[in-house]
Amino acid sequence: MAGPARRERPMKRLDDAVAAAGCAAYVTYASSQDADFRYLTRFQVSDALLYIKRLGEEPLLVVPQMEYARAAAEAAAVPVTRADAGYLAFLDETKDPWNALAQTAAALAGGPALVPEGLPYRLGRLLEGHGNVVVDTGGAVGAMRAVKTSRELAAIRTAQRATAAAVDLGIGMIRRSSPKSGVLVLDGETLTAERVKTAMHVFLMGQGCIARETIVSCGEDSAMPHRQGAGPLRPDEPIVFDVFPQHDQTGYYADMSRTVVKGEPSPEIREMHRAVLDAQTLGESLIRAGVAGADVHNAVVKLFDEQGYESGARGFVHSLGHGVGLEVHESPSLSPSGGPLVAGNVVTVEPGLYYPGIGGVRIEDMGVVAAGGFDCYTDYNRDLIL
Amino acid sequence: MAGPARRERPMKRLDDAVAAAGCAAYVTYASSQDADFRYLTRFQVSDALLYIKRLGEEPLLVVPQMEYARAAAEAAAVPVTRADAGYLAFLDETKDPWNALAQTAAALAGGPALVPEGLPYRLGRLLEGHGNVVVDTGGAVGAMRAVKTSRELAAIRTAQRATAAAVDLGIGMIRRSSPKSGVLVLDGETLTAERVKTAMHVFLMGQGCIARETIVSCGEDSAMPHRQGAGPLRPDEPIVFDVFPQHDQTGYYADMSRTVVKGEPSPEIREMHRAVLDAQTLGESLIRAGVAGADVHNAVVKLFDEQGYESGARGFVHSLGHGVGLEVHESPSLSPSGGPLVAGNVVTVEPGLYYPGIGGVRIEDMGVVAAGGFDCYTDYNRDLIL
Repeated sequence: MAGPARRERPMKRLDDAVAAAGCAAYVTYASSQDADFRYLTRFQVSDALLYIKRLGEEPLLVVPQMEYARAAAEAAAVPVTRADAGYLAFLDETKDPWNALAQTAAALAGGPALVPEGLPYRLGRLLEGHGNVVVDTGGAVGAMRAVKTSRELAAIRTAQRATAAAVDLGIGMIRRSSPKSGVLVLDGETLTAERVKTAMHVFLMGQGCIARETIVSCGEDSAMPHRQGAGPLRPDEPIVFDVFPQHDQTGYYADMSRTVVKGEPSPEIREMHRAVLDAQTLGESLIRAGVAGADVHNAVVKLFDEQGYESGARGFVHSLGHGVGLEVHESPSLSPSGGPLVAGNVVTVEPGLYYPGIGGVRIEDMGVVAAGGFDCYTDYNRDLIL
Repeated sequence: MAGPARRERPMKRLDDAVAAAGCAAYVTYASSQDADFRYLTRFQVSDALLYIKRLGEEPLLVVPQMEYARAAAEAAAVPVTRADAGYLAFLDETKDPWNALAQTAAALAGGPALVPEGLPYRLGRLLEGHGNVVVDTGGAVGAMRAVKTSRELAAIRTAQRATAAAVDLGIGMIRRSSPKSGVLVLDGETLTAERVKTAMHVFLMGQGCIARETIVSCGEDSAMPHRQGAGPLRPDEPIVFDVFPQHDQTGYYADMSRTVVKGEPSPEIREMHRAVLDAQTLGESLIRAGVAGADVHNAVVKLFDEQGYESGARGFVHSLGHGVGLEVHESPSLSPSGGPLVAGNVVTVEPGLYYPGIGGVRIEDMGVVAAGGFDCYTDYNRDLIL
């Protein structure tokens, strides 16, 4: 596993960043919860490990003895035990794990260290005692991650297919439900947001995907974009689905939103849905390599404005989209600060409108940026009324 | 929700740490993937937010406009929009988000800042430009988290009950299987580690729990403690279960391991299992408030040694146990460096023995440290042979 994974990733960009910074090595200390670490190592581990990539050399991963054999089998780096790396001797000397870590990192780096912005502050400060520390303000690993390889695109498509099937399952429950005393009822029981989410989560887990913080928000709750939603779902009110699971084995996310109404939406929601559809169609039509994310976002702001919808504190309150990969939000950005898109970027296009007292509407697709346009991975209808 | 959650947590300890460090406020910047952040805020959010707790005042959480209403409803902190916090003006001035963050943090802290060891290095360095920055080397929030409230204990017990039921389901699949051509077969199909894990994961998801990196490792794989395991399960070989799901809504983990054999274990595995059982019984009998985690670990090392099992590179290769809470590994530690246990600590007791060529055995319980002893939450048999 390590071989192909190591070859496929564009590690030369990391060397280029190290060289440009006048450093000897890239140094980080993180667990696989950190997307950069997972990207670099392809290693799943709960506890933070030291990773050192010297210019032009194979990367090293400092592991406890008990992880050595597994790291040798699984990691896209050469494992070194803490004993062999000198860590245990340093620890014995200083009795301070952070100090011992800094000494180990300095010894293995062999010169000035390029570190990520998110390196633990304590480690960075101690590392300064052993030589120059340069912060990678350019985000070299983030930039590498933003351009997906074909293997990464396949992993994201797999996650997206499972997500669309889960959304279909959830929307199907609402479609099959009936209104009764102001709430939706399915199979004789009140249909709650929790029930729909559990059904989707269980389904996704069967597909190897972990969904968290899933949104199934109804009515007034839907006017808060990240409100997760709870309690009975109601007829004639907007129900926003936003599902963004992570495939457990690959680590890649998908992200998808739809808004539906069982029954008769208010005229306002109907109009908002039409405007959001138009905004999404416009946004997707503008995306291609070389176009700035800001320009796509601003075009949607303009379209909303022409239709009487404001952007900012009300109306369109978030950015049009974001990159998706080993994090659900990553580079690039379709927002006022978004730079040029690159072929291989995976982005969401998710216009939304939110009005307290009326509700919210969001529709979100995800796909890959290509030279000629946007290749949408989300294959699912955008109908409002069930 | 915010009210009771805010009252229940022992926030005075954070104030004490701020005062002891001669600081004006505690400052952190993290998402709810960071357990300290989740503990302090009780807020689930994918993107990092600035949290500032001034001495003796209510904590502040700086949020994007779109999260304001949700944070007001859900967070154990007073939300302030990025605009009101001055962030957007600073950003407009400097065009650098990290600089703007540091300026915002400094302005809200109003004096020297106490920061966690894991604060992003870039933010810490920039914050130094605005006043004194003190690293909380004592880990104030970690220490708060290590002593659980009754509400936290209830959440952990809920997760543990679901975990034991999931392990029972997985072990039940192995029990019901039959050997055929060297592999286990259930319902006409080869029983693989993946199949067992998926069944457990789907079950756990139905209980609101998310399991990742679950271990179902067989034979030679079981000699690597964190090897996740894949492929067909085999008769007469040790199969190690290690399941540590997180309850999605509360954020609390459970952790449990068992080792089973379908058929006839080798004499070595049978002896190792007996030694591990003895070690666990001894470890659990020694735990009580005031006892050092190191003493419990060392007693188990001694017992293994008396039975001819080494500790270190082979044999007992990891520590005896660890705290469990919003992280699966947290304070306190039952290891050579483990300090005194405190009533309210939740710890695992998980002796294990690992020999390449023979296999591994691990048995792990979890429970709470009390004045008089160890109150074990894991209610499940420890039988080796199915």
